Amino acid sequence: MQKLIIVVFLMIPLYPLTCLGQETKILQKARQIFGILPKQMVSEQNPITPEKVTLGRMLFYETRISIDATVSCARCHPMSFYAADRLEKSIGNGCKVNPRNAPTLLNAAGQISQHWIGNRKDVEDQARQAIIGPPSFGMPSIAAADEKLRGIHGYKQFFEKAFPKDKEPVSIDNFAKAIGAFERTLTTPGRFDSFLQGKPSTLDSSEKSGLAQFMEIGCAHCHYGPCLGGGMYEKFGNAGPYWNYTGSTTIDKGRYAVTGSDSDLYVFKVPLLRNVAMTSPYFHDGSVHSLSEAIGIMAKAQLSDTLDDAQIGSLLHFLKSLTGDIPAEAQIAPILPLD
Amino acid sequence: MQKLIIVVFLMIPLYPLTCLGQETKILQKARQIFGILPKQMVSEQNPITPEKVTLGRMLFYETRISIDATVSCARCHPMSFYAADRLEKSIGNGCKVNPRNAPTLLNAAGQISQHWIGNRKDVEDQARQAIIGPPSFGMPSIAAADEKLRGIHGYKQFFEKAFPKDKEPVSIDNFAKAIGAFERTLTTPGRFDSFLQGKPSTLDSSEKSGLAQFMEIGCAHCHYGPCLGGGMYEKFGNAGPYWNYTGSTTIDKGRYAVTGSDSDLYVFKVPLLRNVAMTSPYFHDGSVHSLSEAIGIMAKAQLSDTLDDAQIGSLLHFLKSLTGDIPAEAQIAPILPLD
Repeated sequence: MQKLIIVVFLMIPLYPLTCLGQETKILQKARQIFGILPKQMVSEQNPITPEKVTLGRMLFYETRISIDATVSCARCHPMSFYAADRLEKSIGNGCKVNPRNAPTLLNAAGQISQHWIGNRKDVEDQARQAIIGPPSFGMPSIAAADEKLRGIHGYKQFFEKAFPKDKEPVSIDNFAKAIGAFERTLTTPGRFDSFLQGKPSTLDSSEKSGLAQFMEIGCAHCHYGPCLGGGMYEKFGNAGPYWNYTGSTTIDKGRYAVTGSDSDLYVFKVPLLRNVAMTSPYFHDGSVHSLSEAIGIMAKAQLSDTLDDAQIGSLLHFLKSLTGDIPAEAQIAPILPLD
Repeated sequence: MQKLIIVVFLMIPLYPLTCLGQETKILQKARQIFGILPKQMVSEQNPITPEKVTLGRMLFYETRISIDATVSCARCHPMSFYAADRLEKSIGNGCKVNPRNAPTLLNAAGQISQHWIGNRKDVEDQARQAIIGPPSFGMPSIAAADEKLRGIHGYKQFFEKAFPKDKEPVSIDNFAKAIGAFERTLTTPGRFDSFLQGKPSTLDSSEKSGLAQFMEIGCAHCHYGPCLGGGMYEKFGNAGPYWNYTGSTTIDKGRYAVTGSDSDLYVFKVPLLRNVAMTSPYFHDGSVHSLSEAIGIMAKAQLSDTLDDAQIGSLLHFLKSLTGDIPAEAQIAPILPLD
């Protein structure tokens, strides 16, 4: 009897200690791999100012500078859908289908480049090029878009405030800077960040186990950093042609289109996983609609690993914990000025 | 000298008194003609509840129930453009062009019917029919849309809360009621309402003079009631074919399409003028982009009256005073549930 009491007595503190030890290890490893999500994604070339952000938020909803006056940034990146559009491939002016799935803009400024194949340097470059992108805003030239923009006289005062040193502040170049500054504020901290900051109870045991697995089986080799991705390029289909896994009916050569190098065949930027549960469908062509399925495909195609349902379920729980809060102001559609 | 002093002395109180008299008359007449804008446009058939409004605001942004998953109410009625879209004619699914200009939804529930030719009974009917409107959401049937809606499982709890007595709450019929309830809250009181409520200084002298003219020359014969319109049907082109005034290249037979009666040829619902300065282009076909021009055309085509620049300017000032405040919650794009 005395022996039993001693054993029980010893077990009580031991179990939590083991858990705590394990939790601390997970936390430490996670901090190393992911780091802290910045409040804003700063840029030396385009310092964020409140005036730029105010203007950028307006321009984000502006359709009148597209060729058919139906396309704005918000069309393919509505906040209601976590700044993606739930389509396999976005549909732009004149119903033109974009070559790839619209990635979320939330936290996007924290990536090494923009677009699936990294053919946009940063969020400013993306915004500027979208204006003349044939399936996007579809304008024939930046100059033509400059003219449309200057035709909306009500913007003048906002551009002057945002770019006080410029002689001709109303321009697509400054449109891109304002949109960029706005997008640099679109970070979405959530429960995962509270966890990283030392509040272990913000993730439940299944989420923590998913996180541990995410770091152990190899997901975090590519999906690292505060956005859990967006930091490198990688071939889709390490274990064999990606379309064998996704069922994609058209084959995308990926970053090969940018570099022309054989080593970039089927290479894509590793997508960030922040808010991934809110931004289906998945992959560069939106070929997979279920996140569970996407997790299984990633394990097979990238890690040559077949996960069981429990493993997928726990990874799914972890990925859902990456859904964060969109800044409140970003959800408010501002009134746009008159022509 | 003494005489002059007396004259001056007499003139000082006289001038404001005359103004006040004139102002009081304008105010009294305006109150009779326009009445008070309700805070919400109530309906016996569809009582407004917070749960319906919350759901309606979500559904307003929902694209997934349209045939190509690109059309939501907000697409043609974005709040950034005062719930119209700045296009001559709205563009719906598959780039189909709608037959007429998208009217603003703000205050729209206060009208006798919906759409330019009154072929939608009320805002609920409009929302329901839009789902199967070929150039709108483009769904083949309500049943097919019901199925799409039920496929977005995250809505279930919201429909259950909004329609607690319904056995099968998730339906397009209830979608229409929720959207309708939301739209019934979209009233936009502004300076004109403060004026009507007895604060004469909220309109400046030019606006008041415009208002007086609006009531004198005949505008208010049709544009009456708290929405300044939306209360009756009227032939466009009393003084001759409307297209001679607007330059319209295609001819719209108007309400004739609804009734088949010759007396309804070129008859349209009188549009409401609340927020008119924010919702160009004008008329059922968006053929006129300038509000000044639209004012001149109205006077000529409806009243056989040619206004001079000063008259148009003062009417324009008055119409600009009808720009009101969109309810703050309506400007917030809500996060939509998962599939």
